Amino acid sequence: MGRWKPGAKDRLRLAALDLFLDQGFERTTVEQIAGAAGLTERTFFRYYEDKREVLFDGREALERAFLGGVADAPEDAAPMAVVATALEASASFFPDDGREWSRRRQRVIAANAALRERELLKLAGLAELVARALDDRGVPAAQAVLAAESGLTVFGLAFAQWIEEGETRSFADLQREALATLRALAGSAGIA
Amino acid sequence: MGRWKPGAKDRLRLAALDLFLDQGFERTTVEQIAGAAGLTERTFFRYYEDKREVLFDGREALERAFLGGVADAPEDAAPMAVVATALEASASFFPDDGREWSRRRQRVIAANAALRERELLKLAGLAELVARALDDRGVPAAQAVLAAESGLTVFGLAFAQWIEEGETRSFADLQREALATLRALAGSAGIA
Repeated sequence: MGRWKPGAKDRLRLAALDLFLDQGFERTTVEQIAGAAGLTERTFFRYYEDKREVLFDGREALERAFLGGVADAPEDAAPMAVVATALEASASFFPDDGREWSRRRQRVIAANAALRERELLKLAGLAELVARALDDRGVPAAQAVLAAESGLTVFGLAFAQWIEEGETRSFADLQREALATLRALAGSAGIA
Repeated sequence: MGRWKPGAKDRLRLAALDLFLDQGFERTTVEQIAGAAGLTERTFFRYYEDKREVLFDGREALERAFLGGVADAPEDAAPMAVVATALEASASFFPDDGREWSRRRQRVIAANAALRERELLKLAGLAELVARALDDRGVPAAQAVLAAESGLTVFGLAFAQWIEEGETRSFADLQREALATLRALAGSAGIA
């Protein structure tokens, strides 16, 4: 295979997304995905556990990015500064040339309740992971949970904005803006 | 039935929780729950759709409390002040004499992956609801999402603390404290 051809894994994920969008996630089989990519089912299962995995494949790499960001933060950084570093590190997963793939992926997920739930649970899992990493740095438990979950809230909002039709700002810029908005909001949180 | 006896619904939910704790959620049947409460299955289904509903029954009332809190906030209140009012309104659902029930319920949920997911999705649903209510008040979309999700993060943390063994502070106090901690954290969220 010449190196200008997309690799088998990319062909599978593009074929899968086309089929999910055309005929729905539920109705698409691994056989159809492999066939559309000109590959065998056996090859499919070399890269993915099942068809859902095509949509959630990046999860572990994203987890590593978040944890790497936490590890990179200066030892004396405040909890939300650590989270900000983790968010910065996550932004590399969402380059502008991946935005259209993410938009199409989101349409598939939005159309299927089980996939929507999976996506929410993925975010919750990321927040737990970051909270544990903050905990390991000696951040008090309550602060670790609040900082981590706020960070994932910022991440989730930035992602939703990033894939909106017509949006051209980078993921990193949207995340910084969302974090600044959160700071401004929380700063005015007086209870009368 | 004398009015000093617990009503049928309370008997069912207490019997269900005992059985869930003793033998596990999955292995418990509606027939067993009804039997343990001295009632018929038919009576069970008058109060609950299925056995899971026994654990998630309060959801709609909690939603109404949150929305009532949003509605009660002064028209010119800042988004996080509106959320704080909604949180205050939610606290009435967690009186001290309900803490032991909540602790036991949580043990059932913690032991079952599907129930843990249901609980997470319930929180996510509450955040969406509050975000929409803020949106309806004219709060810009991004602020509505950030304020609502931060509020539910505070709620979730306070709830987790409230049901810890040995915890004696009230739900309302824990929520106020968690919100104050979030404010302090977010205020120091500088990105170097």
